[in-house]
Amino acid sequence: MRLRKKPGMIEKLKAFKEYVFQEPAHRKGKWGYVFGNENPIYLELGIGKGNFVNTLARINPQLNYVGVERVPDIIYHAALRVLEAPQNNLRLVLADVEELPQFFVSGEIQRIYLNFSDPWPKARHTKRRLTHQKYLEIYEYLLVKGGQIHLKTDNLKFFEYSLSSMSNMGFSMGSISYDLHNSGFMGNVMTEYELRFSSLGQPIYRVEAFTPVK
Amino acid sequence: MRLRKKPGMIEKLKAFKEYVFQEPAHRKGKWGYVFGNENPIYLELGIGKGNFVNTLARINPQLNYVGVERVPDIIYHAALRVLEAPQNNLRLVLADVEELPQFFVSGEIQRIYLNFSDPWPKARHTKRRLTHQKYLEIYEYLLVKGGQIHLKTDNLKFFEYSLSSMSNMGFSMGSISYDLHNSGFMGNVMTEYELRFSSLGQPIYRVEAFTPVK
Repeated sequence: MRLRKKPGMIEKLKAFKEYVFQEPAHRKGKWGYVFGNENPIYLELGIGKGNFVNTLARINPQLNYVGVERVPDIIYHAALRVLEAPQNNLRLVLADVEELPQFFVSGEIQRIYLNFSDPWPKARHTKRRLTHQKYLEIYEYLLVKGGQIHLKTDNLKFFEYSLSSMSNMGFSMGSISYDLHNSGFMGNVMTEYELRFSSLGQPIYRVEAFTPVK
Repeated sequence: MRLRKKPGMIEKLKAFKEYVFQEPAHRKGKWGYVFGNENPIYLELGIGKGNFVNTLARINPQLNYVGVERVPDIIYHAALRVLEAPQNNLRLVLADVEELPQFFVSGEIQRIYLNFSDPWPKARHTKRRLTHQKYLEIYEYLLVKGGQIHLKTDNLKFFEYSLSSMSNMGFSMGSISYDLHNSGFMGNVMTEYELRFSSLGQPIYRVEAFTPVK
């Protein structure tokens, strides 16, 4: 599903052009120049207020992060926060997932985070789920061999759908948890959404998926 | 949990001593002599009426099968059926899972099937579940590197428990299905239990787990 982009917001985002990219082709295959190093690149797809990717970038200076968001309003507000203390290893990209192969060459990405993606519960919206086969094909294109998808959600049906769908594509699954916050998993960085819902006692489901061995 | 073995049944089983083994040490590390070849050995843990392992042995003469069962009455009735048409690539073993390291050396097994294992739903019975860590440690001992556990169940909670438990042990998961009979999976051999419950519309859950890469 493609959102109509408000021209006014697009213009406002141009003020952040060093940190928020809208033009794909400039950096494709050249992200090493953007970051000034060849460190691994991790993507988050759907960044919300940006806390997750911002925090990870701060914790892991030896890694590069790109937060991808398709809603101009959301990326604008995330950018305002991120730019309070800009980090050289973090950039944002305004794009639909379908557009990502215009931003990156195949194998340019080491890891993809899917945090609390819209579960699109109705059957007729299956194709919109970010773990639908059509998206998984894009992730497989983007990811280096041995690359991973780390997924968190509070929606059990979406979790089950994702495990099946990724299995069908030949991904293999590890570190499956049905209650992340009581699993002993160290180093979890919470999203704003996660903080709110887990405080209500909602369990968080998590998995790490590995690219198919061909 | 260890069942008291009825002496009468044990005696009756001795009549089948070429096909139903009760004594562990004789074959440990020497299963190639039992089968007359060095083909891979697949185990089923808990054989019910024996249809699954009996059918697989017939379909796959290039593989060896050992059906493991701890209840003398059950193995006796399965043996009666299996021995209607004995197969050189199939044997049964009367044992608890805990006893299996007395029957096999480490790495002697290529694959383990867990079909509709007792889910032991109560929390205080967690340790009896065949995917509890204490059993997974035994499977890891038995399995060759790259060996697999194939699990089917109609109990969603047991399925979720098993995915988490195997993940925690470092197994990785593939071919996850939440509705096996509508998943397009080819070559499924049904157990008696599976046939009965799936005919009532109960979905069957399935996963293939791979031994940890150390």
